[in-house]
Amino acid sequence: MPTPTPLAPSSDKRLFEHVADEITQMIDRGTILPGQRLPSVRRMRERFGVSISTVLEAFRLLESRGLIVAKPQSGHYVRRRSTPPLKEPSQSQPVDRPGSLDVPLSMALANDIGQPAKVQLGPAIPSVDLLPSAALSRALARVARNQPHRAHSYDVPAGTIELRRQISRRMLDAGCTVAPDELVITHGCKEAVYLALQTVTEPGDTVAVESPTYYGLLEAIHAHRLKAFPVASNPKEGICLTALEQALTRGVKAIVVIPNFSNPMGTRMSDERKRRLLQMAIAAGVPVIEDDIYGELPHDGPRPHALRAMDDGSHVIYCSSFSKTISPGLRVGWCAPGKYLPRYLQAKMMLSQMNAVPPQLAIAEYLANGGFDRHLRRLRSAYREQTARMIDAVCRYFPSGTLVSRPAGGHVIWIELPAPADALRLHREAAAEGISIAPGPLFAVHGEYRNCFRLNTGLPWSSAIDDAIRTLGQLAARQVSEGQPMPAEDCGSLAAAS
Amino acid sequence: MPTPTPLAPSSDKRLFEHVADEITQMIDRGTILPGQRLPSVRRMRERFGVSISTVLEAFRLLESRGLIVAKPQSGHYVRRRSTPPLKEPSQSQPVDRPGSLDVPLSMALANDIGQPAKVQLGPAIPSVDLLPSAALSRALARVARNQPHRAHSYDVPAGTIELRRQISRRMLDAGCTVAPDELVITHGCKEAVYLALQTVTEPGDTVAVESPTYYGLLEAIHAHRLKAFPVASNPKEGICLTALEQALTRGVKAIVVIPNFSNPMGTRMSDERKRRLLQMAIAAGVPVIEDDIYGELPHDGPRPHALRAMDDGSHVIYCSSFSKTISPGLRVGWCAPGKYLPRYLQAKMMLSQMNAVPPQLAIAEYLANGGFDRHLRRLRSAYREQTARMIDAVCRYFPSGTLVSRPAGGHVIWIELPAPADALRLHREAAAEGISIAPGPLFAVHGEYRNCFRLNTGLPWSSAIDDAIRTLGQLAARQVSEGQPMPAEDCGSLAAAS
Repeated sequence: MPTPTPLAPSSDKRLFEHVADEITQMIDRGTILPGQRLPSVRRMRERFGVSISTVLEAFRLLESRGLIVAKPQSGHYVRRRSTPPLKEPSQSQPVDRPGSLDVPLSMALANDIGQPAKVQLGPAIPSVDLLPSAALSRALARVARNQPHRAHSYDVPAGTIELRRQISRRMLDAGCTVAPDELVITHGCKEAVYLALQTVTEPGDTVAVESPTYYGLLEAIHAHRLKAFPVASNPKEGICLTALEQALTRGVKAIVVIPNFSNPMGTRMSDERKRRLLQMAIAAGVPVIEDDIYGELPHDGPRPHALRAMDDGSHVIYCSSFSKTISPGLRVGWCAPGKYLPRYLQAKMMLSQMNAVPPQLAIAEYLANGGFDRHLRRLRSAYREQTARMIDAVCRYFPSGTLVSRPAGGHVIWIELPAPADALRLHREAAAEGISIAPGPLFAVHGEYRNCFRLNTGLPWSSAIDDAIRTLGQLAARQVSEGQPMPAEDCGSLAAAS
Repeated sequence: MPTPTPLAPSSDKRLFEHVADEITQMIDRGTILPGQRLPSVRRMRERFGVSISTVLEAFRLLESRGLIVAKPQSGHYVRRRSTPPLKEPSQSQPVDRPGSLDVPLSMALANDIGQPAKVQLGPAIPSVDLLPSAALSRALARVARNQPHRAHSYDVPAGTIELRRQISRRMLDAGCTVAPDELVITHGCKEAVYLALQTVTEPGDTVAVESPTYYGLLEAIHAHRLKAFPVASNPKEGICLTALEQALTRGVKAIVVIPNFSNPMGTRMSDERKRRLLQMAIAAGVPVIEDDIYGELPHDGPRPHALRAMDDGSHVIYCSSFSKTISPGLRVGWCAPGKYLPRYLQAKMMLSQMNAVPPQLAIAEYLANGGFDRHLRRLRSAYREQTARMIDAVCRYFPSGTLVSRPAGGHVIWIELPAPADALRLHREAAAEGISIAPGPLFAVHGEYRNCFRLNTGLPWSSAIDDAIRTLGQLAARQVSEGQPMPAEDCGSLAAAS
């Protein structure tokens, strides 16, 4: 037994909670496996340098969280996780017509980020603790020191050649052969998609989207004065191709899709279905804008191929970003616009001229120095574990009849509550408890998914998150037991309240 | 006399050219004043540690450039600069109707930046040597080292609060009281203006612009599918208010204007004319988008007030940037959208979410540490001197009948050639000589200003620039002497050729 590790509790957390967190981490890391007995109270006391009563209180907390069970005359055991009892959502049923929406809700969500006191389960943000921020900061400092002239000069609109070379190499893993000169650096995946829409649509056009889909895509569509045509999506298979085929007969000018680990459902489309989607787009003469921001983040197995891998650059505009894998704060994404490159580059120049130089050079240096693949392996494993823990907690704390997605990658889950629960009300009540969630209508074109919401699993598991899921479950259960119909409130009033 | 400073010539420049450059700098810095005698050939030989024949050759070069004159039996003297013989351009006469244009020329210009071998007189780029890049790089390295968590995290769409606080303080100098919470950080002034247009117009609307005006504004207008209504402008007074009043009766939805040191003419509008412009906008119920990117760069006197200083935030959307004063490479601008703040913030979030964090924190730290005002004084003096040198060279080398602007601030000059000279042909011929210029039609709505072009005076004076101006003057003189009419070529074919 090692010497005691004295715990230095922060002022707002009690000692037994810290002990419980430490034991939780031992379980998470597999130091003590499901079914195994915990070390005795006496040994725990020595281990943490606390009193017996503190250890007992920590054990009681872990019991209440369903993590351990007490067996009389024998001790405490790590609970064997039963197969989660909650089912997955079924195929969505969006309103079958194009629409244009203006959702101030996402603004409230974006501003949540400025309130670190909140438990951030709304925005899909990775924990910086999981990212290589130390290595990146060293790279940034080196760039500032060694290349001051370069760092502070204008560069070409396409972005620094060093970074485009690195991205060109990385894209081989996604099955894509794209030369550095065919790439454009952007302000995250968001600007990449925005510029793609600018390149292939005119105001008033309609574009097909998965439904539910990432609200950032819907915002970009709205900003361009386009209409979005929501297409039913299946959590197992992705966008419904039959529904898409229907939509394509109705004057759609582009398709915007997240084939790998879609947001919010986490679906991975099979290569076969990707190919069929591409064939349909080609037959309809319509370009596809591919958002592959989660492509590097499978929970198991190799990185899936991009839709772009099946295309020669004539039909697919590929968009991605380092925001979920390396650094949200450096705001670096990219696009492979294929044959649309000249117009795309012009749009980039007209919009923002170019990206800031030092973040590009820092990421290029980090990628060139190796270590990214090792980091990705750790990150994938962390997202897998965190996602599993959160699904487990949802299964424990939410009322029966709740449905929860089983994502194949990325770091969000999608939850469907039994009637008559209302996610907008849940969002408001959760905000009052210091918890942010992303309510379903954010992901809808016509205000659908009022009984759904998305949770971020990008943060390391903690008792605060466990408590937040329990609180959410209790709030949801109360709504279900009240059995009242949904109030007739709209997104606008909610945003004002949050 | 100090010990000789051995010159280390680069491989592509001969020794006497380096000596000539050094002497030119002595003259520029006022070490030797106009009318004064140069040190003797023998002392120059000792000063530079070169042969007498090298000094003599340098003297001959300076004579040929018109910088010095030889007086028999007496020595060489710095030439007294006569009043430049070339006049200023008169008020512009743009085509009097709205238009929408697509100018691939500016793309060619943006890509010039990637070719440092060229003499860059086209893009309005400051020399990094004049900017505080060392201090900024130290700040960037400190941010990376001391705030890795912050540097790599998402922040709110408005941008980091530290930078908004600093900008709020700086804006007092422009006569503007704007709280940090009323500011939004953007990707340069370009995104600031782009988002302003997004906020106050709909596709198909018409906006009034000075003519000629910065092509970046015309690009943003084009990107939004708007029409630009060109308004005549006077190099002494700025936008013609009579012409603007006319335009306002014809369905204009916004005014985009550069009241301080307009680009390309360098005009400073008087406060009285700013007030009248604002009153006209208020009477017409039309918002004004103010681009104040050069406001900090008067050649003489105090920083002028912004148009925003005369408004309470109800009518003016103020845009600016650090690209011309601190660092183009960090790509940090800002906007004070006044009453349009909520919609503006939403547009920023929809477009690019937020700016990269480290560049914002680095600039905030640089501004907080002081030294910016001292730097600005040096920068203003450098731009004043460089602009005067370039006007002087234009007067020496260009054919009579050429007109050249006398900017009150900033770092560009505007040149009008006598008929039948053609700036598009000049742009092409100059490119073949390794010189980039910004031809007039770039700044026009209907392809006007074919006999005009803009030169960047942001680079320290050098023999290479002197040579480039001489070459441009010779090319222009040849066109004038040939007396041929302008060829019927358009901007598109030119861009392809460059």
